[in-house]
Amino acid sequence: MVLKSFVEVNPESHFPLENLPYGIFKSGNEADPPRPCIAIGDFVFNLSAVSSAGLFNGPLLQNSDCFHQTSLNKFVGMGRPAWKEARSTIQKLLSFDEPTVRDNATLREESLLPMNKVQMLLPIVIGDYTDFFSSMYHARNCGIMFRGPDNAIQPNWFNLPIAYHGRASSIVVSGTDLIRPRGQAHPVGSSTPYFGPSRKLDFELEMAAVVGPGNELGKPVDVTEAADHIFGLVLMNDWSARDIQAWEYVPLGPFLGKSFGTTISPWIVTLDALGPFSCDAPKQEPQPLPYLVEKNSKNYDISLEVRVKTTAPEHESVLTKSNFKHLYWTITQQLAHHTINGCNLRPGDLLGTGTISGPEPESLGCLLELTWNGKNPLSFNGLPRMFLEDGDEVVLTGFCKGDGYKVGFGTCSGKSQETVDLIRSNEKEKLRMNEALMSLLLRLDSVPGIDPTVREVRRKVSRRIVGLQEILDAVADSRVEGLQEMMRKWEEVVVEMEEGVWEDERCRTTVEGREMERFCFEKFGFRCMERFLRGV
Amino acid sequence: MVLKSFVEVNPESHFPLENLPYGIFKSGNEADPPRPCIAIGDFVFNLSAVSSAGLFNGPLLQNSDCFHQTSLNKFVGMGRPAWKEARSTIQKLLSFDEPTVRDNATLREESLLPMNKVQMLLPIVIGDYTDFFSSMYHARNCGIMFRGPDNAIQPNWFNLPIAYHGRASSIVVSGTDLIRPRGQAHPVGSSTPYFGPSRKLDFELEMAAVVGPGNELGKPVDVTEAADHIFGLVLMNDWSARDIQAWEYVPLGPFLGKSFGTTISPWIVTLDALGPFSCDAPKQEPQPLPYLVEKNSKNYDISLEVRVKTTAPEHESVLTKSNFKHLYWTITQQLAHHTINGCNLRPGDLLGTGTISGPEPESLGCLLELTWNGKNPLSFNGLPRMFLEDGDEVVLTGFCKGDGYKVGFGTCSGKSQETVDLIRSNEKEKLRMNEALMSLLLRLDSVPGIDPTVREVRRKVSRRIVGLQEILDAVADSRVEGLQEMMRKWEEVVVEMEEGVWEDERCRTTVEGREMERFCFEKFGFRCMERFLRGV
Repeated sequence: MVLKSFVEVNPESHFPLENLPYGIFKSGNEADPPRPCIAIGDFVFNLSAVSSAGLFNGPLLQNSDCFHQTSLNKFVGMGRPAWKEARSTIQKLLSFDEPTVRDNATLREESLLPMNKVQMLLPIVIGDYTDFFSSMYHARNCGIMFRGPDNAIQPNWFNLPIAYHGRASSIVVSGTDLIRPRGQAHPVGSSTPYFGPSRKLDFELEMAAVVGPGNELGKPVDVTEAADHIFGLVLMNDWSARDIQAWEYVPLGPFLGKSFGTTISPWIVTLDALGPFSCDAPKQEPQPLPYLVEKNSKNYDISLEVRVKTTAPEHESVLTKSNFKHLYWTITQQLAHHTINGCNLRPGDLLGTGTISGPEPESLGCLLELTWNGKNPLSFNGLPRMFLEDGDEVVLTGFCKGDGYKVGFGTCSGKSQETVDLIRSNEKEKLRMNEALMSLLLRLDSVPGIDPTVREVRRKVSRRIVGLQEILDAVADSRVEGLQEMMRKWEEVVVEMEEGVWEDERCRTTVEGREMERFCFEKFGFRCMERFLRGV
Repeated sequence: MVLKSFVEVNPESHFPLENLPYGIFKSGNEADPPRPCIAIGDFVFNLSAVSSAGLFNGPLLQNSDCFHQTSLNKFVGMGRPAWKEARSTIQKLLSFDEPTVRDNATLREESLLPMNKVQMLLPIVIGDYTDFFSSMYHARNCGIMFRGPDNAIQPNWFNLPIAYHGRASSIVVSGTDLIRPRGQAHPVGSSTPYFGPSRKLDFELEMAAVVGPGNELGKPVDVTEAADHIFGLVLMNDWSARDIQAWEYVPLGPFLGKSFGTTISPWIVTLDALGPFSCDAPKQEPQPLPYLVEKNSKNYDISLEVRVKTTAPEHESVLTKSNFKHLYWTITQQLAHHTINGCNLRPGDLLGTGTISGPEPESLGCLLELTWNGKNPLSFNGLPRMFLEDGDEVVLTGFCKGDGYKVGFGTCSGKSQETVDLIRSNEKEKLRMNEALMSLLLRLDSVPGIDPTVREVRRKVSRRIVGLQEILDAVADSRVEGLQEMMRKWEEVVVEMEEGVWEDERCRTTVEGREMERFCFEKFGFRCMERFLRGV
């Protein structure tokens, strides 16, 4: 049976009356503060307006200011009885045969806003963010890659939901661009470590639980009561720089390989809305310790998909199809484990599931697994790829399939900004690069040039440096209007430099050549430069 | 030269006019909100009162409400020029020859409150907490213990300041009791993992930098500008449960072994106050990558000490004496590294140094190192100890020695609450234990008792269970008034049970005996119970 609203809802929409996910929106009117809303079809339903109209008339919400806040923290902290009251009120107000909003033109206009006319913000203020590691398939694959098949899954993994503390400050809402992180990666032989923009930028298909009421420090939450501490779920992309991560993570775990950004969907789908799609969690063997034993161990049947849009539209492709139900440890076990030592959770805290990989090769939740750490290229509709390139947009989506309707999460998307934007928007960054190029030129001058080969190489490296300075200026000076022209000029410079330098193999093998290459990797990350450097 | 205030300051005080550390205090008057203050001698100087009196008359502070907040976040976010203005105003107002406060009886009474009459709170709202691992001595010792001497320090350690994200919600101010965390530890052989109160509760002697102005996501902070993003330092005890940590930390790092509590001092000593005590940081070999290279790599000469007070006053003793200057990576390098990937810091974020161990055996910063993971007992003034017991109070202190004065941090203290308090304050906890004891009795009844030895053992285990129920009731029923009586009764029950059960060695070696022992470790952590269980 499908519930019917007076707001038109396409059967393919993620947001029918059965869903009612929560978010925070900002209207086009600059003076309006951000306010809570729910999604219905292609509209957002402004809960602040509904509350001001006195329509939340149940005992828990009628005198509450929880919908006049700029985040959902106050509301999620009120607990399940308030959530149920809100759901029932909203479902009634939006139903086909309820005239209160339907027939009140002013209220309707005030409370129902087209989704494409508003901006969705982070729905919650996140005090602490924790990321679990709850897919056995993901744990096994990572283990095989980094520690070999014999130590693939550590003995602790089957006894407790492994997790690490993540970075809360860099969690952003869907649609926010990221700048490719710079950092260190493994040195080759006895060299210094690689430093520069990450060469192994990856996504991670995850979901995350939003904590409702918290617990006091020192008072663990019983696993049988854990569901009452979870308000709902969001989609999450836990961006990862695999080269940075691999070099830094022993012995204290992931740090800068993750903390440059994590994207979540603007919509929180409540556990109440997900209830009809619950299913049995996988059998756990060995049986967990008593504090993790649940009477009914439940997952949810949520179909998940990752799509990548490259800057060339013809290479858009679906990279993976997975499902929330593949998780070994349930979100309630995660929460009970998190608090068993007395750790306090607060409303709005985020508990990520970890990458949700399934058993099949096409259900793996990140490029690390899909390309086996860059060994087997993946085809983006014919375009071979190992990791993400700048400009690639990663779009996560997920929904539950009901009979004639969907309960979905919308999308969670983001892309890595082109480095050119960084140079253009940051004068200091440009200056620093220019200074570094100048100092390279000076150092080059100090190389004794008696041997003709060395002289020749020096001349060529000089030309490369000058060429780089030209590129840098071209990039920095051009405005968005001049993008086409800039790109043309750039390509010309690159071609000219390729001809001048790369005809001579020796250039690539001298000390200066290598230093040059390192410099470029450190300072630049964009494709033209890489193409130039690799001479392809 | 010693600055002179009209407030009397003992030469041994940590808080002369040269220091002026910031905190948040709550007066004895319930209606007064928490407010910023600085410490001077044995007084706190109420900055809200000073601001209301119009005495912050510099350009940056005269119209600011930063001292009418309940945390220091707004003030620390204003940056060094505001900090300098505040310091100079306060130093002038409190100086010996300045009459403004000195000779205004009303203002003086309002703004200068005896420190022992106010309560100190957490000085900042901490958005994210990061813990580094910057003492080479600590890294080496931990490495030898857990990975052997050949892999003691990982190759990445000398190239970057290793760190992990910590838990912000469980950071508490000095003086807050903790409840010993429960959790899992390594299984023995093929058994299930140990579960119960941690048997390896440890302190960690650390300091932490409080972030001032933050940085935007995607915009790293240059190492040469990092000092302007650090407001000051606090003392920090990063409580650790070594058994939980050892079992959970591979591959994602410390989680529940740390997140049950972290204690910081109420006073933040500014970098301006620490300036005269700066000293050269250790030479770094290999030279770090350019983004970590500082013109002047500075540490501070801060003498640190850890004292433990047991419930028996005669065993109070100093466990370690270390110094902040032993850190290999500086706090400015830590901050630059933290942001190199674009990670954004926010005012009030906390960057822990990691355990500050020095080169000598008596300068090790935690019991893990001091007892070599419980192998070599430490003497608490004659009392042998491996790890902390409930009721042990750990007191950190630190100061810089000037000529005739000290610039200090006061103390950072905390203790692990006795488990009896948990049972007494939580009816549900008591019920759960009672139910578990009943179910043990029922299971015992189902053991076939034909063999006389088994019958005998069963009888004895039954008596133990009944004895435990009696203890539980005695603990739960007693109020604080009846503590003496309860303790007497308890001891009697324990003695009786010891006589009844522990005379027979077989009891300890049967399946039921072992199960009983496991149960008790899981549920109880207090000393009487342990003594009883160990039969000592």
